[in-house]
Amino acid sequence: MWGMGAIVYRDRLQGIFDALEFDRPFQVILPDGSAATHGQAPYAFTIHIKTGRAARDIVTKSSLGFGEAYTRGEVDVDGDLQDVALLSYELQERLLKGSLWERVRYVLGFFARRNTLTGSKKNIAAHYDLANSFYQLWLDAVMQYTCAYFDQPTDTLEDAQRQKMDLVCRKLRLEPGELVVEAGCGWGGLALHMARNYGVRVKSFNISKEQIAFARERAQRLGIDSERIEYVHDDYRNIPNYVKSCDKFASICMLEHVGRESYAAFHQLVGKVLRQPGLAMLQFISRTNPSPISNPWLEKYVFPGYYNPSLGEIIKPLEAEHKQLHLVDVENMRYHYALTLQHWLDRFERNADKIRAQWGEAVVRTFRLYLNGGLADFAHGAGTLVYQVLLSHGFDNGAPLTRHHFYAEAEATKLQPARIPTLEPV
Amino acid sequence: MWGMGAIVYRDRLQGIFDALEFDRPFQVILPDGSAATHGQAPYAFTIHIKTGRAARDIVTKSSLGFGEAYTRGEVDVDGDLQDVALLSYELQERLLKGSLWERVRYVLGFFARRNTLTGSKKNIAAHYDLANSFYQLWLDAVMQYTCAYFDQPTDTLEDAQRQKMDLVCRKLRLEPGELVVEAGCGWGGLALHMARNYGVRVKSFNISKEQIAFARERAQRLGIDSERIEYVHDDYRNIPNYVKSCDKFASICMLEHVGRESYAAFHQLVGKVLRQPGLAMLQFISRTNPSPISNPWLEKYVFPGYYNPSLGEIIKPLEAEHKQLHLVDVENMRYHYALTLQHWLDRFERNADKIRAQWGEAVVRTFRLYLNGGLADFAHGAGTLVYQVLLSHGFDNGAPLTRHHFYAEAEATKLQPARIPTLEPV
Repeated sequence: MWGMGAIVYRDRLQGIFDALEFDRPFQVILPDGSAATHGQAPYAFTIHIKTGRAARDIVTKSSLGFGEAYTRGEVDVDGDLQDVALLSYELQERLLKGSLWERVRYVLGFFARRNTLTGSKKNIAAHYDLANSFYQLWLDAVMQYTCAYFDQPTDTLEDAQRQKMDLVCRKLRLEPGELVVEAGCGWGGLALHMARNYGVRVKSFNISKEQIAFARERAQRLGIDSERIEYVHDDYRNIPNYVKSCDKFASICMLEHVGRESYAAFHQLVGKVLRQPGLAMLQFISRTNPSPISNPWLEKYVFPGYYNPSLGEIIKPLEAEHKQLHLVDVENMRYHYALTLQHWLDRFERNADKIRAQWGEAVVRTFRLYLNGGLADFAHGAGTLVYQVLLSHGFDNGAPLTRHHFYAEAEATKLQPARIPTLEPV
Repeated sequence: MWGMGAIVYRDRLQGIFDALEFDRPFQVILPDGSAATHGQAPYAFTIHIKTGRAARDIVTKSSLGFGEAYTRGEVDVDGDLQDVALLSYELQERLLKGSLWERVRYVLGFFARRNTLTGSKKNIAAHYDLANSFYQLWLDAVMQYTCAYFDQPTDTLEDAQRQKMDLVCRKLRLEPGELVVEAGCGWGGLALHMARNYGVRVKSFNISKEQIAFARERAQRLGIDSERIEYVHDDYRNIPNYVKSCDKFASICMLEHVGRESYAAFHQLVGKVLRQPGLAMLQFISRTNPSPISNPWLEKYVFPGYYNPSLGEIIKPLEAEHKQLHLVDVENMRYHYALTLQHWLDRFERNADKIRAQWGEAVVRTFRLYLNGGLADFAHGAGTLVYQVLLSHGFDNGAPLTRHHFYAEAEATKLQPARIPTLEPV
C-alpha cells in the first residue's frame, strides 16, 4: 500500500510545507527515499520516516502517531528535536484547529484515564514508579522533579533546586515548630529541606509507593524521625483524615495531576485544613489559555491523566468557593522551566547508554522526545507557563508589607545550617 | 408616623442586635430618645438617629439610606466611623443576603449610570471635577489618588507615593526613549515621574477636564513639553486614534471605572497598541469574590458607575481573548491601601473646617463616611483588595529571571535625579 500511495503522500506533504510559515528549513525523507522539503538546503533538520506504518500513523494520529513511531524507532531525526517540536506547534495551529475527530478521540482517551481515587493511583504509578534509580540518573542530587529557580542562568541545577525550595519556604514564611502539610511530595526533598533548614514539622502525602519508600529511607538515613517528617502513602483527598489543622500548606507541581474537574474540591480541602491566618503555596505548570487538547502523546505515554490548568481555571473556583482564601502573590517562572529542562536533558543524554542498557531503547526515545518537547514548550512560547501562586487564608494585617523577606537570607535558615548532602544513587 | 411606630422599630432593632455576632458593644439612640443596644456599656460607639425620616430610610434603603441620612446630618456617630462600617458588613451579611429587592434596585441604578462613552464622562466629572483644590487639601504633594506603597508603615505619604510610582516604573522596566501609554492618568503625577526620572515619553489619557488642565499646567510650569508628555483629553477607548504602537502600557486604578462588561475590550486595546515583547501594568481595586452588590451609597454619591473586579473577572477575558498577553506577576497590596486611606483621612480631618467653609457640610460628611468606610474595607477584611498585575505581551526570553530589579535602585533613575518638587496648592 505504501508503494502505491507514496507519490500522493509526498505531494500532499509538500503542499502543506509550501504553505507553512516556519523560519527553519527542513526536509522529510519518506520510506521510498523521496523527500518533501521546506525552504532551501542546508536544512536545519531532517526527519526520516522509515516505514509505511509510521507514515500512516503520523497522518491518522498526528503528534500521537509521530511520538509512537519515534519511540518504535520508525522515525529518526537528524538535528534538534526541539525544532521538530516547534514545527509540530505550527502544524497543529494550522491543521488541527477545529479537527473535531482529533478532539473527540483525545477527550475519550482522557476520560479513560480520569483521576478517580483508583485512577490516580494507576496514572501516577505509570510514570513515577518507573524506578527511582532511573530518575536519579538525570535529576538533581536531592531528586526534585519540578521547576527550579535560577538566580543566574549559569547556576547549577543543584543550586537552582535549593533556591526554589528556599523561595517556597520564604514565601510561606515558615517558622520553627509550625506544621506544614504537603500535597504531593515526590521523593520528599522539599519536606526534608523544610524540616532541616526551617525547623518545621511536615506531613507529606504521595500515592506513589516507590517515591514514598525512597523518601522514608532517605529521612531515616539522615536521622529524621516521623515526628519531624511523616511521609504518608495516601491520596491528597484523604489529608483531613490525618490532619485537623496546619499552619502552612504546600503543593508543588501536583495540580497538573488533580484534573480540571477537581480544583474546587482542592481549594475546599486547603480551606478545611489550613488555619487562619495561614499561607498556601501552589506551584503548577499552566497555560496562557484553557485548552481541551494538551499533548495526546504526552498524556498517553508520559503523564497519563495530566492537565495543565490556566490561571483562570484555578482562580475561578477559588473565588466561587471562598471569601477567605485569596491570592497574595503570583510569580510566572516560565523561563526557569526551560533552564531546568535543559539541565535534565543534558544529564539524560550523558546517561543515555546506561538508561538504554537497563530500560531499553523505547524508554530512551520516549523521554528524549518528552524532554525536548517540554523544553521547546517553555523556551519558545507555545503557551506553556509555570506559576507559583501564594494564597492567604484570611486577612493577615501582621503580614510583611513588601516582598523583601522572599529574598533576604531567612532567619530560620540559621537554625540548622546543614544542607541536605548529595546522595549517591542507591 | 414615627411616634406610632417607635416601639415596634426599637423592638425590631433590638431583636436584630440581640442575634448579632459583633465584638464591639454599641447603642443606637432613636428620635424619641429610646435606645437599642448590643452588649454592655461602656459602648465603643453610639449612633444617633435624629429624625423619623432617617430611621425609615435606613430600614427601606439600608446602607444607601444610612449614607444619605448621615450626609444630611440626620444621623450622627459618637466614636469611630470605621466601627460603624464593620457593623454594616455584619448586618449586610446577615440581612441583605438574598434580598432580591435590594439587588434589583441596585442593578437598575447601576445601569442608569453605565459607562458608555458619554456616560463615563458624566460619571467621572461627578467625582473628579469637584475641584482640584479640594483634593489638594488631603492628597499627597504630587496628587496621587491611588494606593501608595509603604516600605515601612511609618513612611510618609509622599515617600510611599513616590515608592509606588518607582515600583510601577521598575516592574515595567522603563528604558530611556521608550513610549509609554497611560490609560487614566489622574492629575498626571505618574507620567511626570516616568518622564523626569526614567527618560521615557508618555501619552496619558483622561476624560476629566479639570484633571487634564491641572496636569498640563503643572508640566508646563516644570518645563516639560508635549513631546515628552502629552496629556490627551479623551477616552481610553480612543487610544488607537492617537498611538499605533507603544513600548509599555500603564493603567493605575482606572479599571474600577471601566465596567465589568468591558474588560475583554480593554485587553484587546492593550494587545492592539502594545508591541511584542512589551509589558503592561494594571493596578486596580479588587475583591475576593465577584459580587453584583458593591456599595450602593458609594456608587451613587462618590463613584458613579464604579465596579471593583475580582482577579478572575480580569483574567478570564484575558485568557479568552489572547494567547500572547499573559500574567507574569501579581502583587496584592491590600494593607497598603489601608495605610494610604489613613493618611488621606488624617489630612482630610485636619482640613475639615476649610473644606466645610468652601464646599459645605454635606461634602465633609460624604467624604468622611467614604474614607472611613474604605479604610475599614481594606483594614478589616471585608473582601476588598488591591492588585498590581503585570502582563507580558508575547514571550520574552530576555526578561530578567528574578524580581530583583523591582527593588534595586534602577539605573535609569540616575538619568535625572531631580524628583518632582512639592507643589503649593494652586
